[in-house]
Amino acid sequence: MEIRLATAADDDAIWAILEPTIRAGETYALPRAMTRDAALAWWRAPDGESYVAVDDAGVVGTYYLRANQLGGGAHVANCGYMTATGWTGRGVARAMCTHSLDRARDRGFRAMQFNFVVSTNDRAIRLWESMGFAIVGRLPGAFAHPGLGDVDAVVMYRALTR
Amino acid sequence: MEIRLATAADDDAIWAILEPTIRAGETYALPRAMTRDAALAWWRAPDGESYVAVDDAGVVGTYYLRANQLGGGAHVANCGYMTATGWTGRGVARAMCTHSLDRARDRGFRAMQFNFVVSTNDRAIRLWESMGFAIVGRLPGAFAHPGLGDVDAVVMYRALTR
Repeated sequence: MEIRLATAADDDAIWAILEPTIRAGETYALPRAMTRDAALAWWRAPDGESYVAVDDAGVVGTYYLRANQLGGGAHVANCGYMTATGWTGRGVARAMCTHSLDRARDRGFRAMQFNFVVSTNDRAIRLWESMGFAIVGRLPGAFAHPGLGDVDAVVMYRALTR
Repeated sequence: MEIRLATAADDDAIWAILEPTIRAGETYALPRAMTRDAALAWWRAPDGESYVAVDDAGVVGTYYLRANQLGGGAHVANCGYMTATGWTGRGVARAMCTHSLDRARDRGFRAMQFNFVVSTNDRAIRLWESMGFAIVGRLPGAFAHPGLGDVDAVVMYRALTR
């Protein structure tokens, strides 16, 4: 699996990954009716970088990396990751997270923060914990889950050392 | 003191409040060299509302109110507050926070979150705690304070009931 910078030629493949996750509305705080253009504008925002994970089958995952805050907070990175339907559980997210941690270090970021991990997304939380992230905050009832009602979201954080 | 929606005619007064705080770089994660246009575009973003607190002396404070997240997170409000130089300690921030909590309730928000309160900003933390907010997260070293080096930021949260 190769992980490389996304280009405009990857937009269709990225949207094919983003759309079912956004429509399901269970893991990202995004409007379930979000348009392709709005979603790609957010994922591929010009103040960040976006990557695709490519296997023989094509694009199987995508992630973005950007500063989480400006000014005095600009040394902390933020990432989002999505894996293609049918490709979960095969190490794609782990490979993307490893790549993103290396890339964040290279860019001089000194920590990485996930602002809003839905607490019912057990697989993601376990994965990030195994990648060195800790839950540093809990937002009570901050996510209106379409099936479960209001559930907590957690904030996850890890330092980056060289 | 009257608190009312800001208009374009308030831009000069709002910038006069924002500029020294942004230039000091001690409490908001914003670039210290941020331009007036960028700062006003952020404070008065079209997806939110901005208010001014007006006393006999003129505009003595300003705040914004917006959704903190989209989609399943859109029921949680976010606010930022700034008080004019020389007017701190006179209840301006408290009055603005009270106003914002009422306004957030009226708009249907069910909670309010502050994402990034610099841990050395004792006065703000004490004030928000007295207004019902709790520290629900701590981001280690997430803020590069211009005088103190890396300090923690905290996440503060409170439910809104009717």
